[in-house]
Amino acid sequence: MLSAEKQLTEIRRGVQDILVEEDLLAKLREGRPLRVKAGFDPTAPDLHLGHTVLINKMRLFQELGHEVIFLIGDFTGMIGDPTGRNATRPPLTAEDVRRNAETYASQIFTILDRDRTRVEFNSTWMGRMSAADLIGLAARHTVARMLERDDFHKRYKAGKAIAVHEFLYPLVQGYDSVALRADIELGGTDQKFNLLVGRQLQQSFGQAPQVVLTMPLLEGLDGVNKMSKSLNNYIGITDGPEDMFGKLMSVSDELMWRYYDLLSFEPVAEVARLRQSAADGANPRDIKIRLAMELVGRFHGPDAAQQAQDAFLRRFRAGELPETIAEVTVHARDGRLGVAYILREAGLVTSTSEALRMIRQGAVRVDGERLDDGRREVPAGASHVFQVGKRRVARITVLG
Amino acid sequence: MLSAEKQLTEIRRGVQDILVEEDLLAKLREGRPLRVKAGFDPTAPDLHLGHTVLINKMRLFQELGHEVIFLIGDFTGMIGDPTGRNATRPPLTAEDVRRNAETYASQIFTILDRDRTRVEFNSTWMGRMSAADLIGLAARHTVARMLERDDFHKRYKAGKAIAVHEFLYPLVQGYDSVALRADIELGGTDQKFNLLVGRQLQQSFGQAPQVVLTMPLLEGLDGVNKMSKSLNNYIGITDGPEDMFGKLMSVSDELMWRYYDLLSFEPVAEVARLRQSAADGANPRDIKIRLAMELVGRFHGPDAAQQAQDAFLRRFRAGELPETIAEVTVHARDGRLGVAYILREAGLVTSTSEALRMIRQGAVRVDGERLDDGRREVPAGASHVFQVGKRRVARITVLG
Repeated sequence: MLSAEKQLTEIRRGVQDILVEEDLLAKLREGRPLRVKAGFDPTAPDLHLGHTVLINKMRLFQELGHEVIFLIGDFTGMIGDPTGRNATRPPLTAEDVRRNAETYASQIFTILDRDRTRVEFNSTWMGRMSAADLIGLAARHTVARMLERDDFHKRYKAGKAIAVHEFLYPLVQGYDSVALRADIELGGTDQKFNLLVGRQLQQSFGQAPQVVLTMPLLEGLDGVNKMSKSLNNYIGITDGPEDMFGKLMSVSDELMWRYYDLLSFEPVAEVARLRQSAADGANPRDIKIRLAMELVGRFHGPDAAQQAQDAFLRRFRAGELPETIAEVTVHARDGRLGVAYILREAGLVTSTSEALRMIRQGAVRVDGERLDDGRREVPAGASHVFQVGKRRVARITVLG
Repeated sequence: MLSAEKQLTEIRRGVQDILVEEDLLAKLREGRPLRVKAGFDPTAPDLHLGHTVLINKMRLFQELGHEVIFLIGDFTGMIGDPTGRNATRPPLTAEDVRRNAETYASQIFTILDRDRTRVEFNSTWMGRMSAADLIGLAARHTVARMLERDDFHKRYKAGKAIAVHEFLYPLVQGYDSVALRADIELGGTDQKFNLLVGRQLQQSFGQAPQVVLTMPLLEGLDGVNKMSKSLNNYIGITDGPEDMFGKLMSVSDELMWRYYDLLSFEPVAEVARLRQSAADGANPRDIKIRLAMELVGRFHGPDAAQQAQDAFLRRFRAGELPETIAEVTVHARDGRLGVAYILREAGLVTSTSEALRMIRQGAVRVDGERLDDGRREVPAGASHVFQVGKRRVARITVLG
């Protein structure tokens, strides 16, 4: 094992919060494999790169010799929505959970080492728990502290209903840390409150409190909003190699560096060197190709990555695109925007009628491919390189 | 069965709230025996007359032909204080509960008809309930509504901790009504919120909501505070006949009428007649003796009541006490007050040294018995007739 201090340097990379770092250092100094827990919702097994920020950190802990626990929170999923208000969220069956878990597994083991990953389902202990036990658990936390959680606080102040069972879910999640005797729990920044409940419950059960480590939320292709399927600004880890490659090439230069920090496994020193080379005049497109090669290679292998790169470069034939591309944002209407409007708003044409004429003439390309349909619409969250003729080029992001 | 309207007239007597009376009338009109639930805490089986206000109403429902359910809330008692803060409240064992229930039974069946009383323990259904079921139950109520409960609201505003499990207890109590399919639930006014939770949960489970019927809290011997053991202003139903008789004779005339309303089984019309006779000049002492005879007779039989009355009258020999006795209140220090101070504060002597001299001379009586010890102290909540010589007499209540 690396020294505790060297491990800490690696662990810190890209992290939002470590609560508390002294505890982490002390645990690392014990020199034993630490139990590193990360919980996942069993209802949405279709992972995108945003989810992998956390999984990448889990992988790091594996590489450092620790025990990584992939915890599937199936207990609450199997309860479903007990208010009955949300008819579109029926309770999951054990069969649903098993199937989703397999889908998860096939996705996460593109990143994690299967042989060194412990997969757990919290129904194992929560399914055995009695109402009396749950009451005992609920006694260990106060209403006032629950109401400090940001979303509860806002809803309470706004007079929006919070069902009493919503106060129990953070306790269930926290109890998972007790059951697993977790040393460290990883989560998104939006999970910070719940992770701290776990820390507090462990202390209440006489255990050493887990270290809470939160990862920032990854921005989507628009560079503004959190990556999410509903905003359509995501790269799914099951996206095909050419699709994934093209999407990665469409991100802004600024976002590229963010992706290097949170998604790349290149050493910190190497990323610093790349930044310096860009500052010294290297073409950001080449640095972006390197990132795309790494990520497509991770999920599809190096050969598929090479083919995706070749296809991409064929589309953008040498000399056809300028060295630097202007970055423009336009605003969607009702979640989408027609291409003619996009071209006009971005200033590539002076009117929508000019846009439609250019499209009819075959002079408009989107990500290197000729656009045939003047009625095509682009959803909010998407980002593409538009060309009108040879010289009018811009990377246009459609904001919601 | 009596007509619904006639039953309602009897049921209304002494009641604080009926929620809602139209529902009650509709249920009574169904002409079937209604399930009437009243819940009792298994930790305090030593009943006093304050508790019997509710039990008397249960008895009325029995007499009207309904099914009375004496529900022992042993489930929460067996959990104890899960916060562990209250070391003096250990969890009850099943054996504790059984023993307490027997003590209860021996006490309540002095009032209720044993053969027509259904005794239930809520551990029967709550003990089987899983954590998942409890989460489903908690989903049926909101945090905001819980915080409307008076004591929760006050504690929350004052920054005093409310443990999350305290929100679950009203739901457990409410679920008891679902499990029993209660038509009516009786409780003290301080239970109103919890009884309404039962009503709401039944609706949420698709049952007709129970009618909530609250009884006022009985004032203790001081006529001011709620009767309670901790205030020492109570008459226990296992108090001996002479003790009970003497305590009842010590209450003020005003409180006597309150006790007639809430404790006597005399018909409403008869109580009205007694009030009129007092207004016409009858001695309230004789009316009080009648109440004492009824209540002592209820718990100890008519012979014991007669003996208690005889003993009481021997102590207060005819002519020894004036027809009317002044009523005086004095204030305790640290929860009690020495007799010499009591006599001075009440104006029966001019100084504590006079008081001590009179006690030494054997000229001071308390409830007709000579007082020998000048250092004796009287606890707050107690009420006694003090005499100094023959003419200086007052009923003195020591307030806390």
